[in-house]
Formats: sequence, C-alpha cells, structure tokens
Amino acid sequence: MTMRTETLHPQHGSERGKPMEHPHHVVIVGGGFGGLYAAQSLRRAAARVTLIDRRNFHLFQPLLYQVATGGLSPANIAAPLRYVLKRQKNTRVLMAEVCGFDLRQRHVLMADGSVAYDTLVVAAGSENSFFGRADWERRAPALKTVEDATEIRRRILMAFEVAERETDPRKIREWLTFVVVGGGPTGVELAGALAEIGCYTLRNEFRSINPRHARIVLLEGQERLLPSYPAGLSEKARAQLEQISVTVRTCVLVTDIQPHAVTVRGDDQVETIPTRTVLWSAGVRASPLGKLLADAAGVGVDRQGRVPVEPDLTVPGHPEVFVIGDLANYAHQTSVPLPGVAPVAMQQGRHVAASIRRRLAGKTPSPFRYRDYGTMATIGRARAVAIIGPLRFSGFLAWLAWLFVHLMYLVEFQNRILVLLQWAWNYFTWNRAARLITGENAAPFQQ
Amino acid sequence: MTMRTETLHPQHGSERGKPMEHPHHVVIVGGGFGGLYAAQSLRRAAARVTLIDRRNFHLFQPLLYQVATGGLSPANIAAPLRYVLKRQKNTRVLMAEVCGFDLRQRHVLMADGSVAYDTLVVAAGSENSFFGRADWERRAPALKTVEDATEIRRRILMAFEVAERETDPRKIREWLTFVVVGGGPTGVELAGALAEIGCYTLRNEFRSINPRHARIVLLEGQERLLPSYPAGLSEKARAQLEQISVTVRTCVLVTDIQPHAVTVRGDDQVETIPTRTVLWSAGVRASPLGKLLADAAGVGVDRQGRVPVEPDLTVPGHPEVFVIGDLANYAHQTSVPLPGVAPVAMQQGRHVAASIRRRLAGKTPSPFRYRDYGTMATIGRARAVAIIGPLRFSGFLAWLAWLFVHLMYLVEFQNRILVLLQWAWNYFTWNRAARLITGENAAPFQQ
Repeated sequence: MTMRTETLHPQHGSERGKPMEHPHHVVIVGGGFGGLYAAQSLRRAAARVTLIDRRNFHLFQPLLYQVATGGLSPANIAAPLRYVLKRQKNTRVLMAEVCGFDLRQRHVLMADGSVAYDTLVVAAGSENSFFGRADWERRAPALKTVEDATEIRRRILMAFEVAERETDPRKIREWLTFVVVGGGPTGVELAGALAEIGCYTLRNEFRSINPRHARIVLLEGQERLLPSYPAGLSEKARAQLEQISVTVRTCVLVTDIQPHAVTVRGDDQVETIPTRTVLWSAGVRASPLGKLLADAAGVGVDRQGRVPVEPDLTVPGHPEVFVIGDLANYAHQTSVPLPGVAPVAMQQGRHVAASIRRRLAGKTPSPFRYRDYGTMATIGRARAVAIIGPLRFSGFLAWLAWLFVHLMYLVEFQNRILVLLQWAWNYFTWNRAARLITGENAAPFQQ
Repeated sequence: MTMRTETLHPQHGSERGKPMEHPHHVVIVGGGFGGLYAAQSLRRAAARVTLIDRRNFHLFQPLLYQVATGGLSPANIAAPLRYVLKRQKNTRVLMAEVCGFDLRQRHVLMADGSVAYDTLVVAAGSENSFFGRADWERRAPALKTVEDATEIRRRILMAFEVAERETDPRKIREWLTFVVVGGGPTGVELAGALAEIGCYTLRNEFRSINPRHARIVLLEGQERLLPSYPAGLSEKARAQLEQISVTVRTCVLVTDIQPHAVTVRGDDQVETIPTRTVLWSAGVRASPLGKLLADAAGVGVDRQGRVPVEPDLTVPGHPEVFVIGDLANYAHQTSVPLPGVAPVAMQQGRHVAASIRRRLAGKTPSPFRYRDYGTMATIGRARAVAIIGPLRFSGFLAWLAWLFVHLMYLVEFQNRILVLLQWAWNYFTWNRAARLITGENAAPFQQ
C-alpha cells in the first residue's frame, strides 16, 4: 500500500462528491462498545468522525462464550462496523492497525499512514493477561476474539473425540476433565456451558465414552466465585453450578499448567489435576495502546496498563484526548476503578460524544458519572444470577432477565431474531448446532 | 494416543453394555452425501456400521459459496455427524484420518490404528485440482472446505477494505477486480454472488470507493458456461450474469496467475487482467484414497484419480468393497462417467445400503442406475437456470426451484428454518450478515 496521511483523500468525510461539511474531525480508535457507542452518538454532531478498528466487525463479547461452546456462530454475535454505520453520513470506518499517537501534531499513527484529528477518543479495550507466563497462553486459551472462541470450541469438541477413540482409562479421564481457571462471569458461564454439553448436548452421540462423565472443574483464587458480586449471589452461583455437577474450588492458585495437568495450591496443599483442556478466564490487562498513549502524554498507567483519566474522561493535560472503556482507569466515583464491563464502556462512549457536542456548541462538558443499573451472569441453561437496581435474583427469573438484556443489546436487529431462534431451538432440543471443529488444527489427533 | 485396532473396544457397536447384536461390520469412509446417505439407509440393516470422517461434520457443499460470500455462517450448512446419527443405535462415528486399505486382511488403515470390516464403502469424495500448479493453489483459493470458504470470504472483503484506503487509481482498480476461473456451477454461483456484493450489499458502506465499480470477470475454457448443461441454458446463464454486469469470457485458458494479475490466452491472443483476487473453480480430482484403494485392488484409476467400478458399484475383484460418489467412475449407464454431483452420491449411497441389506438377506444385489431428476445453478439473487425432468427453466422460477430443493436437502431440520430466515432477511435487505474477516491473516494490510 502507498504510505500516506489520510488528508490526501479529498472526498474524506463526504460521500460521493458531497461538500465536506464539518471541519472538526473526531477520530475514534476501537469499534467495541465504547468506540461504537461514541461514534453512533456523534451521528448528528457538527463533526466528521473516523472510526478505526483492526477488525471489520463489532463483536458482542458478552456472548462469546456461546461461540466457544458451539451454541452460536461467530456471525450471530458480530456486526460489520461499516454496516452498522452505513447511514451515518458524517462517519467513515477505517480498517487499520493503530501503532501510536503523536499528541503534539495530533496524529494517530498506523502501520501504513496516519490520520490527523481534532478530538481523539481511544477505546482500544483490553486483552488477556497470563501474568507474564507466555507458555500458559498456548496451553490454556483465553476468550477474547472470534479466533479464540473457535479455538476453544475446537479443543472442547476434540477432547470428546479423542476420548472416544482412547482405550487407556487414565487418559480417557484426562481428556474428559475440563479445567476453567478464573471464577468471574466468563469462567462461570464457560463452566456452566461445559457441564451442559457433557450432560445434554452430546447425550447418545458417543459409543465408547459417556459424555456425562465429563468432569468440569472451576478454579478461583479468591474465596468466592464472582468476587465483584454481592456475597449472597456468589453462593447462589456456586450452588447452581454444583447442581449441574461442576466442581468449584475457591482459594486456590494455579502454579503451573503442563500439557497433561494443572497444578494448584490452596491452604498449604499442592494438588495436581490431570487434564488435557484448560481454559483461561483469570485476568485481562489493557491494550498496549494505553501505555503508548500515556507515554505520549507524559502520564503513567496503572498496574493493569490502564490510563488514569480526569473526571471528564480526558487524559491529564490533553482535553482533546478521551480514553474510555476497559482502557480507562476512572476512579473518581468509587474508591476503585470502574469495572471493565460493557455498560461502563457504553455510557462512557455516549458521555464523550455528548461532551464533544457541547464543546462544539461552545459549552463546557460535565464530568462523567456511571449509573450502575445492574449486572448478571448466566450459568448454563435456565440458571443465572442477576442484580437489577436494588433487586437480587437467581435461578430461572435471573436467566430470563439475562436473556432479555443480552438480546436487547445485540447491535443488529436481525441478529436478535436469529439468536433468539437459535436459542429457542437449543433450549428445547438441548442441541448446539455450531459444533464445528475448524481451523488450522482441525485434523484429528495431532496431539 | 495408544495404537490399537478398534476390535479392542468390547462395547463397539453397542451402546452402554447392550449386547453386540450384529456380527457383520460395514465400514464407511467419508461423511459426505454418499457416505452419510449410505449410513442412514443402513439404519435398520442387520449390521454394525462405522462411519469414518476426518471432520466432525457433514458439509452441505452446494451452499458453500454462500459462506464464501458472507451470506451464511459455516454452521448453517454443516451438521455434526454424531448428531445426525445419534439415534441410529447400530452406527458409530469415528473422527479419524484414513491412510490406506488392507483388502486382504479387510482392514481400513488409519494414522493411529485400524478398523476391520466385512463390507467396505469408500466415499472419500474429491478435492480441488490445480493441474499441477502448486503456486496457483496459494494465489487462487478454491472452494471445498469450510476453511476455504472463510479464506475466500476474507480475501473478498479485504480487497474492498484495501481499495478504500488506497489512493493510486490503478491499484484501486486491481483490488476491485475479481476473477473467477471456471464457468461451471460453482464459478457461476460465485460470480453472481460477487456481483451482488458490489452492487447491493456494500452500497453506502464505503466513503472513498464505490463498491458498484467492482469488476467481476468469469473465465471459462470451453465455448460456453455450464458445459454440462443444455446449450440454451448456458446462454440464459450468460445473459443473466451480464445483466448484473459480470464480464463473461469463454474459450479462454488461464496461462499464469501472478500476485497482481491473471494471464489468459484465447484465439491466439494473450491478455493480462490486473487483479488481486483470483478464485479457482476450474477443476477437481478424486481424493488420493482412490489411488490407494485401486492400487490395493490391483486396478487402475482414471485421469481424475477415480476408481472404475462394476455395474453394482463394487471394485473389480472385490465384491465386498464399494466405491461411490465423486470417487467412483461409473460409466455403465452413459458413455461418460456420471458427474460429481450430490444427487449421484446420494443415490449411490442408498443403492449400496440396499445392496448390503439384500446380501445379508441372501439375495443378489441389482446393478445401480442413476435417475437424473434435474440439475440447477443459481446466479445471484432471484436468478437461476434449472432442468427438472424434461423441463428447462431460467430466471425467478428457476431460482424458486433451486431454493426449494436446496432447503429440502439440508440435512438438519433446524438449519432449514435458520437458513430460510437468514435468506429471507438477506433477500429483503440485500444484506449479508456473515461478513467477518477472520483467521490467521485477519490483520489488515499484510499484503
């Protein structure tokens, strides 16, 4: 590709020869919940908007565990960014890899060029953290991208396939043991879905093994699951997981992940769990773009690599640069930074868009305040825990609330219908149709 | 894995301790149309059945071009083999790579063991043929597997993304030129879908380029498209493609595929078409298992690697070994071998199952006869050509027939509903929701 700055495009920000209406240029880095909601809320702003993402789609990450467990297809939970923003005439989408920021010249640097901005919104999100153990990353895949999800799906399904052909009972046991590291919402959801797969989805499909004998172990370092939830709901979550035969172990730390086992330490005891499938949901860190941005601004990042922001979500000393979502450390409201969840990113995206519109109108932006409407995690079929305002639910009612909220927030209307139908089918048949072993390692038995 | 023969499994062919009812063991290699229909038709046979496939799903290949063009997700056109056969108690599924045959000992050889058979059905299908040009294979992906389809989808979508960011008009033209090599049904379907993508699906989604300017070129070596169809329908297909601005070139041979161009020769003229995206649908050859089987049986294969079979679909000299589908050269009915299409494989699968049942009942099997009920190819939205019995259709009516037949043959009931809904949505909105750029090369601009 020709190297260039984006200003070489005369028609930039205008469609097919329409005059360029707005001189103010907002550049948004990242098409996740924060970036996409910011872009959509700038629909009627007196500004040109450029949304940059390295992928061509917005991913509805809260449902990614459904792809990893064969319940949904990647396209069910992804919407092409261009499609979502096609009618928004002041906005363009660039598929590009951002590699730095020139805050002095006000340029976003990409691998193959640069884009000038007047206002910058960085919403680059987070990635999985393996606490510096690069070898664990290969052995225990974590769930962040579509590729992660199909790789985890491959490993889960392949474990049953290998067990079916194995004759050594010890090895069969290893293949049928699934260890999930990390008892946050993703870990709880993965463990619940895994239990469902063994008990119901694969029922009657194998002739040598009984998939019901699959053992699901959920490990959590703290003393209860879902540590960010009220203690009562943590207990409910544990009880619901144990109802579907998930082994829950709290207060245990993973000390090693080998190809055939996981070693854990808890209460001065060291234990080795033989397993061939370890899934990682124990931690995330901010995108490396956080550090690059903070360095450029002369501020530091926190331990997770997040950028500390002012009450109005700007970078200290740079009122024209906003950081939102998982990448921001916003600690002005509560004693701790806001959690890295979709509602925070969405509200911050909308708030930043409002701030930009106010500034363009000559007004002063107001500080951000997070409104916590609730939080929820699902546990297999028809089980969940949920906080909605002052209320706490668990069981079927919480699951219905979870279903409703997640369907409502799916970006594309079509996806809501198709996902609902897919789920209705899965619910009544216990089936998971997207059970494909695909990708580079799809050939059998390369272990 | 432990090396072993499958006879080590005492519970083989029986579920959870049920006594082994049938001593006669039918092994089927391949879970495509031929193998799956054979297995399903042996549901009530007095035999144990083992279906071996290297993938864990049956793929509805006639709709694979829809995955390659973002209209459907892989799971919409794939059904897990275990799921399809779960209620068939006399049948087990093995996910394994077959690497040879010991016809004397009656064993199927796998990478990690062997399976003994009494009757063998080989339905290993075909793969793409690049006429010995291995370098073309990398430059011009062909459509056979789910991975092929998502790779082609990636290349098509990425071409538009790169063109949007490119400034050199010559390079933009290269990126927006798509060349399909081979004017059989797959090539016609791909070219039609590509034209639709440029003209409708991506409309209003780009700001620098106009996707409508995409140029689709369909190349065919013979003097008309769809050479296996009646000449009248070839003309209709060409006319319908030209209506949606596809450039059709017949009587041209591809002589070279470079990274930025395709060279073709026709009528003593050599022409170079600048393009970055070449899709291959110019030929298939039989699976290498055909040659291995023929060698073991002491017979030869034909030029495409197919095994010549007796009128009852057995291998000469081996009445216990059947070959069906794309792998078989059955030339007893017409002067030429039957074409490699799904209906031939399905009918042969059913016929072989009937033959096995007859033999087990002490009767003599009858020779196979193909009943040609028709054939059809679709050309983008609401256009198609079809032969049904003595009738020839083209246009909307042919498309409705195509839709009906393809939905009816989708293996799983659920998929029919979801595919129909997905298509209804696509039809009325022109959208294609499964437009994800995924996989190893999903990062932008590595060209």
